Amino acid sequence: MSAPHPKAASTQQKLLRARAASAQMALLSTTEKDALLLTIAAAIEAGEKTILAANREDVETSGLEGAMRDRLLLTSARVKEIAQAVRDVAALPDPIGETLAEWTKSNGLRIRKLRVPLGVIGIIYESRPNVTVDTAVLALKTGNAIVLRGGKEATRSNQRLVEIMTAIPGMPQGAIELLDSNTRQSVHEFIKARGLVDVIIPRGGAGLISFVTENSTVPVIETGAGNCHIFVDESADLDIADRIVINAKTQRPSVCNAAEKLLVHERIAPTYIPRIVRKLGDAGVEVRGDGKSRSLAAGLNIVPATEQDWHEEYLRLCMAVAVVANLEGAIAHINHHSTKHSDAIVTSIEKNARKFLREVDSAAVYWNASTRFTDGAEFGFGAEMGVSTQKLHCRGPFALAELTSAKYEIIGTGQVR
Amino acid sequence: MSAPHPKAASTQQKLLRARAASAQMALLSTTEKDALLLTIAAAIEAGEKTILAANREDVETSGLEGAMRDRLLLTSARVKEIAQAVRDVAALPDPIGETLAEWTKSNGLRIRKLRVPLGVIGIIYESRPNVTVDTAVLALKTGNAIVLRGGKEATRSNQRLVEIMTAIPGMPQGAIELLDSNTRQSVHEFIKARGLVDVIIPRGGAGLISFVTENSTVPVIETGAGNCHIFVDESADLDIADRIVINAKTQRPSVCNAAEKLLVHERIAPTYIPRIVRKLGDAGVEVRGDGKSRSLAAGLNIVPATEQDWHEEYLRLCMAVAVVANLEGAIAHINHHSTKHSDAIVTSIEKNARKFLREVDSAAVYWNASTRFTDGAEFGFGAEMGVSTQKLHCRGPFALAELTSAKYEIIGTGQVR
Repeated sequence: MSAPHPKAASTQQKLLRARAASAQMALLSTTEKDALLLTIAAAIEAGEKTILAANREDVETSGLEGAMRDRLLLTSARVKEIAQAVRDVAALPDPIGETLAEWTKSNGLRIRKLRVPLGVIGIIYESRPNVTVDTAVLALKTGNAIVLRGGKEATRSNQRLVEIMTAIPGMPQGAIELLDSNTRQSVHEFIKARGLVDVIIPRGGAGLISFVTENSTVPVIETGAGNCHIFVDESADLDIADRIVINAKTQRPSVCNAAEKLLVHERIAPTYIPRIVRKLGDAGVEVRGDGKSRSLAAGLNIVPATEQDWHEEYLRLCMAVAVVANLEGAIAHINHHSTKHSDAIVTSIEKNARKFLREVDSAAVYWNASTRFTDGAEFGFGAEMGVSTQKLHCRGPFALAELTSAKYEIIGTGQVR
Repeated sequence: MSAPHPKAASTQQKLLRARAASAQMALLSTTEKDALLLTIAAAIEAGEKTILAANREDVETSGLEGAMRDRLLLTSARVKEIAQAVRDVAALPDPIGETLAEWTKSNGLRIRKLRVPLGVIGIIYESRPNVTVDTAVLALKTGNAIVLRGGKEATRSNQRLVEIMTAIPGMPQGAIELLDSNTRQSVHEFIKARGLVDVIIPRGGAGLISFVTENSTVPVIETGAGNCHIFVDESADLDIADRIVINAKTQRPSVCNAAEKLLVHERIAPTYIPRIVRKLGDAGVEVRGDGKSRSLAAGLNIVPATEQDWHEEYLRLCMAVAVVANLEGAIAHINHHSTKHSDAIVTSIEKNARKFLREVDSAAVYWNASTRFTDGAEFGFGAEMGVSTQKLHCRGPFALAELTSAKYEIIGTGQVR
């Protein structure tokens, strides 16, 4: 480890600044916060040229290609989208100060539970520079300070975006801190900063997420991994099934709410397996199958699935298909193999759908709709920090309300116990 | 470490049983759960003799005396109280299945957010055997399985109570698991069981809590440490101040919501410091003070406080007193030294109270009332799992609602993106 640049603040100094800023942020009014957000949106549009120049350097240095290059790449249109997303967040209601419950006890004590900021939000993420702005403005809107640790490949883009946001007049020093993305050391200090940081949200690949959940002493909201299933029940409308399976698998295969597994009820399998294997193949999907699916799709393009396949999140045009004996078999398979993200049933029988919705233990459970809807914007939250796959604090897509905690105010006239 | 008894299940086996049980527990109806609870209450009363016999053995073996012995001791009256607390929980509304939000999107998708159980609740606690039953029934009421790891000194009492609860007809196997309290190994395996256990709640001394928060890979709800403050403002009604200070310090000094520190506005300090130091002394409290308090209370019983005193949770009849320049000084002192549990202001000026309530960053903030009210039963929750001093998931006293998570049910007619 080389000595830090004399002018650069250390990770610890940045965390302390964020902690101090969080106390100021918590006291900002909705009007003050929204004014900061609108100024950020304008400054990002005004800074487009310098943002694109920094991003071009990142893209060239990274040597990335294809989908990975595309995740990193900013364009004039994308910069405008980022600015628009900031305006969208400014337009959302401010959850801070909301009364969550209020009551008076028989001894006259008045108790009010109200929403307050979490304090300091930490986020560790990869590639996409829009995450830098999206998450910072969600934090600002909720009166939190945020500490960002982005991917190495996006260093210059993130630096430029943070420079623009922190230069806004009236922005408290420390409200947005960007950690060094070139060393792992900053991640290690970050996830051990219990007391300075109130929550860390890892957004990225399975390796990053498990590293953070295994090693962090700061409370974590686990996001993202999605081994999502679609179960086609015996009574399914097969046209609906086709549409959902093809959409959930192919519309954007690299994201966590894309479907990875298809389970088919054995009574309908002889008809449906060959039909969907053909359609998936036509859509460019590599299909893997259990023994029964392969024999039903003999002659079609289907290769054997291994045990590992049932657990894997492909994040690409690949899908594994299995035949299950019945609804119970589908539920058991899903609860055993899924990452508890999003799972769907296609059926015409309400009783079966209700049982599936009730017994599948996932953040989002669907009846006759694509798993691709598990998303903050699609749910109508205006934006999202991520999709939580844990049960503590929040589950599923989360945004403003989940960046808050609560506090009890108790008002008396001298009451004692 | 000696080999486990051949018949005894290992920690891992118990955790797996609890995981399996949680799926069954989640499907129990309110009627079924309340019936289990009422049967537990009756069985505890019927088993009083064997419970008291087991407890007597624990008390004798422990060699504990005084307050520590009292925490461990069960009596006929206490067994009846435990049974009554179970009936109280049975009478509370069941939060599971409650619709938290519901809306229809423009594309016709119907989205419902509902309360579901967390899954497997873990608790690590010390001494008091009533915690075994209190926490188990809160978990059962909310459709969760629970894994208990009690203190070594209460081994036989806890075993007997768990035997009685698990022997109830209809109780799913694994719904209540008790880990070995004689080795640290069970704690180590417990806090690393991410995926099997959904949350671990440490209840006990600062050492236990920091060990669990530092080492657990399972999400934790940090409870309990309470370095609670009372600030007597210049405009305070001094009779109210006396009553609150004496009550918060002396009514039950060993608990987390007892006051440990007293801050006095410098304008009122010359009158109030000698007065309260005398009253605290009369109540048997050891008083420590900063330089200003000591000179104002010259001749009275007050010893010097060190820097360590301002951070310490005494949990006994000891209180440190400091003079602060003004309201801002009091808020800054509290936010720097408190454990963010419960802090109070005594004042007649509403503006000062509002500023204190807003700016003190603690789970419970009081105006003219004793900090001793921070408690699930006092807040009207019927019971409590503990008092959370972290901001994630829940803050302050928590009970049934906080033992739940959420799930999104999405119903469509073939919608895709």
